[in-house]
Amino acid sequence: MIENLTRLRVRYADTDQMGVAYYARYLEWFEVGRTEMLRALGLPYAEIEKQKVALPVLEAHCKYHRPALYDQLLRVASRLKEMPRARLRIDYEIFDEAGELLAEGYTLHTFINPEGRAVRPPRVFMQTINEFFTQP
Amino acid sequence: MIENLTRLRVRYADTDQMGVAYYARYLEWFEVGRTEMLRALGLPYAEIEKQKVALPVLEAHCKYHRPALYDQLLRVASRLKEMPRARLRIDYEIFDEAGELLAEGYTLHTFINPEGRAVRPPRVFMQTINEFFTQP
Amino acid sequence: MIENLTRLRVRYADTDQMGVAYYARYLEWFEVGRTEMLRALGLPYAEIEKQKVALPVLEAHCKYHRPALYDQLLRVASRLKEMPRARLRIDYEIFDEAGELLAEGYTLHTFINPEGRAVRPPRVFMQTINEFFTQP
Amino acid sequence: MIENLTRLRVRYADTDQMGVAYYARYLEWFEVGRTEMLRALGLPYAEIEKQKVALPVLEAHCKYHRPALYDQLLRVASRLKEMPRARLRIDYEIFDEAGELLAEGYTLHTFINPEGRAVRPPRVFMQTINEFFTQP
Repeated sequence: MIENLTRLRVRYADTDQMGVAYYARYLEWFEVGRTEMLRALGLPYAEIEKQKVALPVLEAHCKYHRPALYDQLLRVASRLKEMPRARLRIDYEIFDEAGELLAEGYTLHTFINPEGRAVRPPRVFMQTINEFFTQP
Repeated sequence: MIENLTRLRVRYADTDQMGVAYYARYLEWFEVGRTEMLRALGLPYAEIEKQKVALPVLEAHCKYHRPALYDQLLRVASRLKEMPRARLRIDYEIFDEAGELLAEGYTLHTFINPEGRAVRPPRVFMQTINEFFTQP
Repeated sequence: MIENLTRLRVRYADTDQMGVAYYARYLEWFEVGRTEMLRALGLPYAEIEKQKVALPVLEAHCKYHRPALYDQLLRVASRLKEMPRARLRIDYEIFDEAGELLAEGYTLHTFINPEGRAVRPPRVFMQTINEFFTQP
Repeated sequence: MIENLTRLRVRYADTDQMGVAYYARYLEWFEVGRTEMLRALGLPYAEIEKQKVALPVLEAHCKYHRPALYDQLLRVASRLKEMPRARLRIDYEIFDEAGELLAEGYTLHTFINPEGRAVRPPRVFMQTINEFFTQP
């Protein structure tokens, strides 16, 4: 399993008039989580895009346990639990400063070229991921 | 079943550098769909909030079939398929102008009071919904 | 002067925990206004982009007079008061349903090609604008 | 003068199909800047709100010099150049990693109570600010 922890702060822009973070914003935080996980792997998403491969989202899911509040410093845990093939699934958990689980979810991605057609993951991508999954 | 169709246009603000609508924005469109469905039922969400009841999201799911593009005029179909009890589930489909299905998903809600505790749905809410579900 | 009026509804996503629309959202509404003004002129922005010309924003300004509230049906007035040359300035006013002025501002744009270099406005763009400004 | 520097990374959610950060997002970054400036002063905005005082935006301005790009690590410089009275003005500059100025602007705020009426800044707010401005 590949795992990454990153932190971010809830902005005023993230809140709504219920006094909590708006539910769509969590998907932006998932994006922050996977971006940092890829960077930590040595595969920054900006580099993947330069190789003319994009990872659009096929599916997104979020369960909201407790509301995230303005100015909280959240921790986003992103996990790649299975070796990706045609599809790549990333799981997320979002915690507050006290370690309470606020939300969890996943995104499912595919690899496409600039014409929007499904392609194989870039070789360097698979090699890097492979090394992590075959580590003893 | 209660059903509502509403239209909205993809804004430039909705797009990302993949040249398509960013995946979190679909949840905002789901919100537009359920807001208009509630309004069409005679239960505007703004009125529900005035009765000190909120409908936070417990769960959100979206499957992305084809990308929504800038300036497309989308149709959002929102459906209440089951009589809500403690929880309310709304299903959504998003279509482009040609009637192609772009995305589908659901949100699951509960009813809470301003202190954040679970409460029964407002009586007028259940009566109105009831009438729709018991129509011959 | 070229003028356009368009309507939009304040979404829950637009609000913040002050109970009013978040200040950055007004710039999205300005975008909706200018998009609809260009469409009404017969120059949809999507068409301008297909001609490999973009209109990035050089400057944006907004004065907030009264807060826009959730579910209000706003009117956005967009105006092109001066014939554009190298730069294009659009002025905006946002009103609530009662006709109260909520906000006003402007955006200043330039014309660039895909390489990011300043270019002349497309000929069809200038011709169309020209006709409006020279109408008796 | 009171000054604060904070860093943030451009998210995919911030980009639009021009391949650069969408212009309204800069106002969210200004918000991040002033939030961190207030925190550094020992006056977290969340604390100010608990004292039933809000600082809504009366005016916002931004000049865009160079586009902010996906994944760039930006620096936001926030400055309080003048002692606030009824109004508080904060100036911002946004730089990329190479120190290039990408954008600059300001926001103008007032102090209001929960009823929306203008009030004096909280005493502790003015005392703290005062100390900074009277430092030799």
